[in-house]
Amino acid sequence: MNTDVLVIGSSAAGLVSATTAKRVHPDKEVTVVTRLPQTLVPCGIPYVFGTLGSTDKDVMPVARMFEGAGVRLVHNEVMAIDRENRRVLLADDSEIGYDKLVLGTGSLPQQPGWLSGQDLDKVFYVPKDKDYLDTMKEKLAGCQRVVVIGAGFIGVEVSDELVKAGKQVQLVEQLPNILGMAFDEDISRRIEALVTGRGVEILTGTGVSKILGRTAVDGVELSDGRTLAADAVVLAMGYRPNTELAEKSGLPMSPLGFIKVDEYMRTDDPNIFAVGDCAEKRDFITRKAVPTMLASTACAEARIAGMNLFKLSAIKTFSGTISIFSTAIGETGAGVAGLTEKIAERENFNYVVGAFEGIDRHPGTLKDTHSQFVKLVVGKESGVILGGEVYGGLSTGELINTIGLIIQARMTVNSLLTAQIGSHPLMSASPAGYPLIKAAENAMSKMLAH
Amino acid sequence: MNTDVLVIGSSAAGLVSATTAKRVHPDKEVTVVTRLPQTLVPCGIPYVFGTLGSTDKDVMPVARMFEGAGVRLVHNEVMAIDRENRRVLLADDSEIGYDKLVLGTGSLPQQPGWLSGQDLDKVFYVPKDKDYLDTMKEKLAGCQRVVVIGAGFIGVEVSDELVKAGKQVQLVEQLPNILGMAFDEDISRRIEALVTGRGVEILTGTGVSKILGRTAVDGVELSDGRTLAADAVVLAMGYRPNTELAEKSGLPMSPLGFIKVDEYMRTDDPNIFAVGDCAEKRDFITRKAVPTMLASTACAEARIAGMNLFKLSAIKTFSGTISIFSTAIGETGAGVAGLTEKIAERENFNYVVGAFEGIDRHPGTLKDTHSQFVKLVVGKESGVILGGEVYGGLSTGELINTIGLIIQARMTVNSLLTAQIGSHPLMSASPAGYPLIKAAENAMSKMLAH
Repeated sequence: MNTDVLVIGSSAAGLVSATTAKRVHPDKEVTVVTRLPQTLVPCGIPYVFGTLGSTDKDVMPVARMFEGAGVRLVHNEVMAIDRENRRVLLADDSEIGYDKLVLGTGSLPQQPGWLSGQDLDKVFYVPKDKDYLDTMKEKLAGCQRVVVIGAGFIGVEVSDELVKAGKQVQLVEQLPNILGMAFDEDISRRIEALVTGRGVEILTGTGVSKILGRTAVDGVELSDGRTLAADAVVLAMGYRPNTELAEKSGLPMSPLGFIKVDEYMRTDDPNIFAVGDCAEKRDFITRKAVPTMLASTACAEARIAGMNLFKLSAIKTFSGTISIFSTAIGETGAGVAGLTEKIAERENFNYVVGAFEGIDRHPGTLKDTHSQFVKLVVGKESGVILGGEVYGGLSTGELINTIGLIIQARMTVNSLLTAQIGSHPLMSASPAGYPLIKAAENAMSKMLAH
Repeated sequence: MNTDVLVIGSSAAGLVSATTAKRVHPDKEVTVVTRLPQTLVPCGIPYVFGTLGSTDKDVMPVARMFEGAGVRLVHNEVMAIDRENRRVLLADDSEIGYDKLVLGTGSLPQQPGWLSGQDLDKVFYVPKDKDYLDTMKEKLAGCQRVVVIGAGFIGVEVSDELVKAGKQVQLVEQLPNILGMAFDEDISRRIEALVTGRGVEILTGTGVSKILGRTAVDGVELSDGRTLAADAVVLAMGYRPNTELAEKSGLPMSPLGFIKVDEYMRTDDPNIFAVGDCAEKRDFITRKAVPTMLASTACAEARIAGMNLFKLSAIKTFSGTISIFSTAIGETGAGVAGLTEKIAERENFNYVVGAFEGIDRHPGTLKDTHSQFVKLVVGKESGVILGGEVYGGLSTGELINTIGLIIQARMTVNSLLTAQIGSHPLMSASPAGYPLIKAAENAMSKMLAH
């Protein structure tokens, strides 16, 4: 069998690469190979433990989406890429020839070699694998005390959901704060207070040194010497790019271990692209290599790849990865886009911070009014908006995208202060006290201060 | 008494002018004169009839805000401006001398001269006046059948709120659709279905010709000959700029009847600025004079004026008014920014429309998931985003601001397709099916079609 465009992987990266490729090149045949019987909504996974109640409610209807887009879907596993003959070899010994190949092989949970006890029963990871998660859910049903290791987004969201499902949860994080890689300390502390109030016990500033137990886990030994009793352990220690196929085929890797790509998502092989968690990324502002893994980033890269497979047509007017993270805990949302203060400091930017706390409805007498805190990191001399953080209600999800686009459009404080922002009592802050604009005012005052 | 900066008016325009002026020029004395004992949140007014229940809950704490900002507040009415001697004369025959004067005199409800019966008891307008609205609420308490004339935002929101308060409401609109000045027909029709479902009876395509009654109103005669019985009538036929003071002082007016200003909000008198509903506006894209009246626009203008009173410091990197309207009916939000299809057609733009309907959470099995429809109007050759409309859940309030900033930053479809958009299951659409980006894809396909 042959195809014009072959995409490996059916999650965000593969889905959007394939449908974009077909939309832009309707005369080409586009085929997706996936080893997964069903594809999950990746960012929905933590919610299968509580809010959604089942992985069945977190399935992406990819078969229907591919059919609707005119893309062929093959359920099989690619074992090797034969670059010289432009073909891939499948698990059943069949092969598919390609003209252009897109790797969307994703990422896998970290399983650190130094940590003993990972093979014990009821020690879990959080992979994007429905069968695994179904078994995990079944086994967790009989467990009361759960220790979650790692307080990134997955660790925090899973902890909160497990509490919702009635578990007693301890969340262990090596850094001084939860979500410490994503947010500045002030925002992390707010989220900590919120999550603690909802019943998660947080232990920061200590790592895990050993997982304890004979056949099943019965505890965790921390690096500070304490021992926690546990009926189950969830390891949420991050993800590593799934690059095995690419490496075996001889494609060059980046120093951080991702598949090396250019700004059009091309690998060193002109006929092979890589997108999503498995592909190298460079930060939009610091220009450094970053290990960002986000479905939203994957989708943007996939659109770039899909449009540029045969000719470079979607010329990038800006480049680099801008991490836009957001999470919701109950009715509270937290989001970050671009540089935090911490990174601005570490990377030696000449910056000022503007901040403002207001409310997300107006008047504040309205039901469901939530406080809204906005912080902007701004280049002190250029006035260019480098980053922003929001802690507010659920409209945070879209507000952080507004900030993301402000950064991507390289807007300045001046253009933000003269910008027009719509507002409605039931949906947004007062135009006279819109926290985003007030934060910009605050930044401007600091830019002008001596 | 003398002051460096004198601001007339304490609503959005006056509030933000004065606090910005003081923030940027801390050494100057800034004074606000207002004739209102209490200032209302303007866009909250429709909600005093139902959701808020009382005007007391819609008061802006301006006294506290001015005090906190170091601005002096004077409760009095300005009767005349003596431009030659740079002073204003007050109702109590005192005067205030100024160096710079900012007019934020706002707008007043239209009271069309041709419409008889407006002086009957229980015929109401919707002014930004707490005492008036309190009396109106009291009188409405005894009324069951209410006819609202005019289906702009105020008319629609007041109608929905009066239904919420148990009234039987008929909403009369001369145009073929409600909100027909703001939205394209497809969005208007969705809002009509929604509002009708909530109990408002909508009569479009007919105006009012006469208000009927002896001492109190008892009905309305429509231009198509029908008569509606009514215990009360609310006239929501738009607002006119309150320019009396400016006109009396000899300041030039625009052809549409607003105070003539330049892009820095300066009138023809170098020491007098005008901002908000009373000041002339030019559309961001069509460049034509427009009668837009929005608190959000007023705030942007007020920031410009406040920053540029003594020297032009906040150089505008773009100019013109971009109308960003939004409204919420129950859990549904609708918003529009920039050009609609209808205006693009009327103004003879070479444009394409990209549209997509998706959902505002992911997976869609989540509680509170709402459909989300996004439409973009795009310059066919330039690819520049000229306008957008959204019909979705309550996150519409911030999403329409994202679109507003895209327009103000003059982003193109190409830059939007390569843009990165964050997403979270509980707050936003799937990154793989984000309606804003899918609408851009749809527009791009049409741009490339022959």
